[in-house]
Amino acid sequence: MVRLETDLPPEMPEAARDDLLAAERRRGEELVRAGTIEHLWRLPGRLANVGVWQAADPDDLHTAIGSLPLWRWMTVRVEALATHPLDP
Amino acid sequence: MVRLETDLPPEMPEAARDDLLAAERRRGEELVRAGTIEHLWRLPGRLANVGVWQAADPDDLHTAIGSLPLWRWMTVRVEALATHPLDP
Amino acid sequence: MVRLETDLPPEMPEAARDDLLAAERRRGEELVRAGTIEHLWRLPGRLANVGVWQAADPDDLHTAIGSLPLWRWMTVRVEALATHPLDP
Amino acid sequence: MVRLETDLPPEMPEAARDDLLAAERRRGEELVRAGTIEHLWRLPGRLANVGVWQAADPDDLHTAIGSLPLWRWMTVRVEALATHPLDP
Amino acid sequence: MVRLETDLPPEMPEAARDDLLAAERRRGEELVRAGTIEHLWRLPGRLANVGVWQAADPDDLHTAIGSLPLWRWMTVRVEALATHPLDP
Amino acid sequence: MVRLETDLPPEMPEAARDDLLAAERRRGEELVRAGTIEHLWRLPGRLANVGVWQAADPDDLHTAIGSLPLWRWMTVRVEALATHPLDP
Amino acid sequence: MVRLETDLPPEMPEAARDDLLAAERRRGEELVRAGTIEHLWRLPGRLANVGVWQAADPDDLHTAIGSLPLWRWMTVRVEALATHPLDP
Amino acid sequence: MVRLETDLPPEMPEAARDDLLAAERRRGEELVRAGTIEHLWRLPGRLANVGVWQAADPDDLHTAIGSLPLWRWMTVRVEALATHPLDP
Amino acid sequence: MVRLETDLPPEMPEAARDDLLAAERRRGEELVRAGTIEHLWRLPGRLANVGVWQAADPDDLHTAIGSLPLWRWMTVRVEALATHPLDP
Amino acid sequence: MVRLETDLPPEMPEAARDDLLAAERRRGEELVRAGTIEHLWRLPGRLANVGVWQAADPDDLHTAIGSLPLWRWMTVRVEALATHPLDP
Repeated sequence: MVRLETDLPPEMPEAARDDLLAAERRRGEELVRAGTIEHLWRLPGRLANVGVWQAADPDDLHTAIGSLPLWRWMTVRVEALATHPLDP
Repeated sequence: MVRLETDLPPEMPEAARDDLLAAERRRGEELVRAGTIEHLWRLPGRLANVGVWQAADPDDLHTAIGSLPLWRWMTVRVEALATHPLDP
Repeated sequence: MVRLETDLPPEMPEAARDDLLAAERRRGEELVRAGTIEHLWRLPGRLANVGVWQAADPDDLHTAIGSLPLWRWMTVRVEALATHPLDP
Repeated sequence: MVRLETDLPPEMPEAARDDLLAAERRRGEELVRAGTIEHLWRLPGRLANVGVWQAADPDDLHTAIGSLPLWRWMTVRVEALATHPLDP
Repeated sequence: MVRLETDLPPEMPEAARDDLLAAERRRGEELVRAGTIEHLWRLPGRLANVGVWQAADPDDLHTAIGSLPLWRWMTVRVEALATHPLDP
Repeated sequence: MVRLETDLPPEMPEAARDDLLAAERRRGEELVRAGTIEHLWRLPGRLANVGVWQAADPDDLHTAIGSLPLWRWMTVRVEALATHPLDP
Repeated sequence: MVRLETDLPPEMPEAARDDLLAAERRRGEELVRAGTIEHLWRLPGRLANVGVWQAADPDDLHTAIGSLPLWRWMTVRVEALATHPLDP
Repeated sequence: MVRLETDLPPEMPEAARDDLLAAERRRGEELVRAGTIEHLWRLPGRLANVGVWQAADPDDLHTAIGSLPLWRWMTVRVEALATHPLDP
Repeated sequence: MVRLETDLPPEMPEAARDDLLAAERRRGEELVRAGTIEHLWRLPGRLANVGVWQAADPDDLHTAIGSLPLWRWMTVRVEALATHPLDP
Repeated sequence: MVRLETDLPPEMPEAARDDLLAAERRRGEELVRAGTIEHLWRLPGRLANVGVWQAADPDDLHTAIGSLPLWRWMTVRVEALATHPLDP
């Protein structure tokens, strides 16, 4: 489970901010299409999300997270998950 | 998102512990069948899980969590989730 | 704003637990009727609530909270609130 | 329950600060009129408030909070509330 | 500044609890008369207080706090204070 | 009880810093003369203090704290105090 | 990386404690022989260790940690590690 | 630097408590005579101390701390120290 | 065990960032060749690593860590490790 | 016990940084010669130290710490120490 919180400086020019957010969306779509991001939820009220990511190993996960255009502004928290016998 | 961590006293008799865990499993299966528990993962190495629950409102969620046989031994953390436009 | 979290020992006999919870409910109703508790919400999934209490001063507030039958099992957090010009 | 703490840079020019605070007040009034903000209290001594917000779902809540002019300077904490049987 | 929080087990017999609290009050009165406790406030809603204590040195302060009948049930936090030029 | 910690940027020009600190002292003296600040102690080694403030209500307290020239650089923590029967 | 801290009740009879610690050692030796525990260090002064464990997936890791005789007395923290290009 | 906080159950019989504290004192004196404990201060108001210990390596330090009769009731925090060029 | 987290400002020019990271890699290689860094793992998703370092004493460890080109941007946490009898 | 952690901005020009550190060393030497700093240790890997300071009272301690050229960049934590009967 990957928790990403983005902290963009409020005084960043609107155009730069929009460009970054658009690039982030495009990269996110690629990761979804590639099956890397399996589930994604937004934490309401914040520029933050929590997701379930699939990667061959932690190295691939590192590469995938590091490929996000907003990565340098992010606080990242990764938590290993095991399967639960009751999961539908 | 619901995070449940169970803290059973280590000196609880084995039979009582097994009964509780079995009852918990049965109640968990019911909540899965009812669609209340949508996703469930285990936090490896701990008697703990994190899940995505569906409920009509926070009152129903309270009733569902409180119906777990292990509830009295649990630490519970609920976090509201919004949908994310990229969620597959 | 008063945040109350109750930690009853799981092994407390059912009857004693029920008596305590019933006494708590009765005392809570009195505090509501007296106008001491103005608003009250439950924190879903936990034996915990958060409320807005009215008292003449912090001494009265102390007496009111200390009159709860579950007080000895509670963790209490009091936070002073000022009025907000936008409050409806 | 939504807790908002604003951290404006002290060196922000007075006029910019006043404009932001005025815009925030106007948007707050709209959210009150729309019934989104049901209760609002100030945390004394801080540029911070805690409120009870009503929204159809967490997505609407996200949109409402994100519409605040001060949002980019805010730390936001959302906590789901269930109704309490004793609430007046 | 000394912050004392007492955590008496809820199941302690009423008489033992009353005796302890009475002994604590008597010892507290002695420390007030001796000028050791200069100011004392209660933290509303909790069996806790915060006070300003005067002692020749930290060793005397240790002896004074350790003489409280409730000391074994207390969490203690000591914070050194300097005088402030504006203090009335 | 009000705890104020000031965080001035180290690179602030000396004159600006001196002006701010002098203005703060003057406003502090007014609050002491008005009886708003009853007790004040410095936390040794830090640009921080802890004090006991008197105000008609939390709104007045908010206004008083917000009137400090250093307020925008401060972290503020307010804690409600009740009277203690043993206070001299 | 797995961090294990054991909290045995001080009043546990010496023989029971010795048996548990001996069983723990035997199970630890098996996990070392099986290659599950790759590295293990003790945190000095505490009944705690930190280790690097190898498992096919988080489910296997969960089973391995849960097989420790002291598991019920442990606080467990698992942290995913990626390989570092500089690791010798 | 070693920080030791002891948490003896308040209901421990006085004789057992006295025996433990006397044994602790004797073992402490041995560690002082052996040069293992170089400096020792009490944290006022608490059954806690902070000290500078000398040991050949962390293994010896672990053995020394673990030899304290109160060890099973202690919370231990070890922090490595380097020499400072200004130390007298 | 040494935990290093680097916090480079996102707006640092790409060339400066690349130079720093390249210098860091070279210095890291030297520390590996010198046997100072024994093990090194990356914390996935973050510009952070955790490693086992060997040094004659804490002074040498201080010098080694302080020689990293990224040191001024790092948060460093050092934790003493003892050998564990089960370590392979 | 005084714990000082310095956080100099990484982009500070080398000469300014060197000047500050040299001034800090000179002032530290004076405080050592005056007997104010009795013991001083470096926290390895960080621009931080922990020391035992002697002062007539907390006001003098405040003045001494505040006289450090790096004070404005420091996080300071003061902890009162009592003598321990076992201290050599």
